[in-house]
Amino acid sequence: VPATATPPAQLLLLGTGTVGSAFVARWQQLARQGWRLPRLAALANSRSALACGDDIAEALQTARQWSPVACREEAVAAGFAGLNELLQANNIVVDATASDAVAACHADWLARGVHVVTANKLGNGADLLRAQAIARARRETGACYGDAATVGAGLPLLRTIRALVAGGDRIHAIEGVLSGSLAWLFDRFDGERRFSGCVRTACAAGYTEPDPRLDLSGEDVRRKLLILARAAGLALETHEVQVESLLPSALSVADITEVDAALIALDAPLRQRYRNALRDGARLRFIGHVETGIGAGHRASVGLRALPADHPLCGGRGTDNRVAIHSDRYRTQPLVIQGPGAGAEVTAAALIDDVLRITSA
Amino acid sequence: VPATATPPAQLLLLGTGTVGSAFVARWQQLARQGWRLPRLAALANSRSALACGDDIAEALQTARQWSPVACREEAVAAGFAGLNELLQANNIVVDATASDAVAACHADWLARGVHVVTANKLGNGADLLRAQAIARARRETGACYGDAATVGAGLPLLRTIRALVAGGDRIHAIEGVLSGSLAWLFDRFDGERRFSGCVRTACAAGYTEPDPRLDLSGEDVRRKLLILARAAGLALETHEVQVESLLPSALSVADITEVDAALIALDAPLRQRYRNALRDGARLRFIGHVETGIGAGHRASVGLRALPADHPLCGGRGTDNRVAIHSDRYRTQPLVIQGPGAGAEVTAAALIDDVLRITSA
Repeated sequence: VPATATPPAQLLLLGTGTVGSAFVARWQQLARQGWRLPRLAALANSRSALACGDDIAEALQTARQWSPVACREEAVAAGFAGLNELLQANNIVVDATASDAVAACHADWLARGVHVVTANKLGNGADLLRAQAIARARRETGACYGDAATVGAGLPLLRTIRALVAGGDRIHAIEGVLSGSLAWLFDRFDGERRFSGCVRTACAAGYTEPDPRLDLSGEDVRRKLLILARAAGLALETHEVQVESLLPSALSVADITEVDAALIALDAPLRQRYRNALRDGARLRFIGHVETGIGAGHRASVGLRALPADHPLCGGRGTDNRVAIHSDRYRTQPLVIQGPGAGAEVTAAALIDDVLRITSA
Repeated sequence: VPATATPPAQLLLLGTGTVGSAFVARWQQLARQGWRLPRLAALANSRSALACGDDIAEALQTARQWSPVACREEAVAAGFAGLNELLQANNIVVDATASDAVAACHADWLARGVHVVTANKLGNGADLLRAQAIARARRETGACYGDAATVGAGLPLLRTIRALVAGGDRIHAIEGVLSGSLAWLFDRFDGERRFSGCVRTACAAGYTEPDPRLDLSGEDVRRKLLILARAAGLALETHEVQVESLLPSALSVADITEVDAALIALDAPLRQRYRNALRDGARLRFIGHVETGIGAGHRASVGLRALPADHPLCGGRGTDNRVAIHSDRYRTQPLVIQGPGAGAEVTAAALIDDVLRITSA
């Protein structure tokens, strides 16, 4: 019987928004530079899917122009139905969506031997059972799960935490500024200008989600903290993270059309918190913090904190993320990693890092 | 013909000083915690070598008590002669020495398929030809070269630079506080107390080499900068790094017995440089800096610099290393990695990280 060679890996890109488009742009740039890349075989979004052919830019253009439908699970399922032939062992799915329905498929794909590379935080950052199913499927089939893009847009956070654990280190605590938009807001907010004005500027610059409440609620940070904590080996449940939202109730219940007008409800309380911090020589930072429970119970929280100006998490500028890792090894002084942790370009680059790690292994 | 199973990897530890001893201590700790580790088969230092047997602590004690001989190459060679049977494919040599003669063997060992894990900077941080021979031998045999301990004592510096390059990023520049002892000295020096006194305190605390001139000359930083630059793909020659030593000539030519008395020659010039920096609102930091030549020629330098107080390399405390990486991807704001980068314990932990990466691959 002649040996059959494994067919070369093909790639399926899910999501054609800003991250998916940046992925295609970087893909083409690396191809022009002569990098050997797997074939980008198909694109899909919540409306439909198509095979790419040779002109990937044209395919992307087509996909972005499909008429929008309400992003229902059935539409997603329909979009993916034609892609079943690609969902086979050794191929790679790149998830550049923010869809819960897509994240719900990650474990199934891994169980079929399909590698998954994702910017979607709802795989390892949602329910613990889902994250555990992903870990189990990886172990069983040896398929790879590339999630560097989910926290810090490819900053070497997850890789570093996993490498420490693999080397016998025990992680005691992880704390970090994990939201690029909230980092930018509290870097800019000086207690004089209105916080609502800062939020509007951040929205206009594309630093926040279109609805800034997704950032201000702390839910995005909760997901990232869950991903970091689970990478450190802690089976942390979603509800165990205490999240203090920045949203006053008037703002959180406002209709999307009234959000802009309702932002001023942020101004008075945040001005007061800024002044209190300033009085103590401290700075406001929006922090995710988890203690893994080495020697005690575990605790996890997300919220605004007043930190001493020389605290490691007070460094950085603009949208910089920064994370401090405390462990057996980094007991006196933490390991700190800081850098741009948001934006379509760095996120797309992190996705391609993970794809290349799989295809060059 | 029946298939022959690969025999399990065995480990040979070279060097029984503070790093080698810390390696053995951590080894035993992980073994007690139930980690599966390869067999630590033999110990060697510049005096002799011995098989470990079951009681590794006793073997270490014996090796440390061998009567010292001048550390000549012949002594090293004699020490290693009995170890030839261990130098075979799939085994692992851990180099916890600072010996040039040992580093000169790295490429040969790799060419025989022996993995090398090293805290010794003289493999990739000495002559370019030697570093290139190491890279070539790795490629040819697939043997691993674990050098995480050589810069930043295992901080995720080399791994991060190599991962960026593997993902298609181009490194523009790397700058860093790369010496734990010099970091400590310029964190402590306030322009009032004598710099010579700070050096004596650092010596007494074990932060410097026994002869502090090895740190103050900048040679240690030159080696680390060479290792980082070469990891970024730059074929940098040793002599291309412009090193500004901190040593006044009176101190650099002093006999080792006169060093302590001659340290006061540092005081006046460093007080002046401190005052000049202070006048400009800057801080003194001892920096290694390389521009890799994307778009221009490459440049590399080591020396004392006056940096703005909010510069990324002004953060950190005590002996913390910190490194800023500028690249295509990290163009506006650099990626910054900071943490304890010196000391026998973190160095030993970095060695074991690399050993476990090899044995679990």
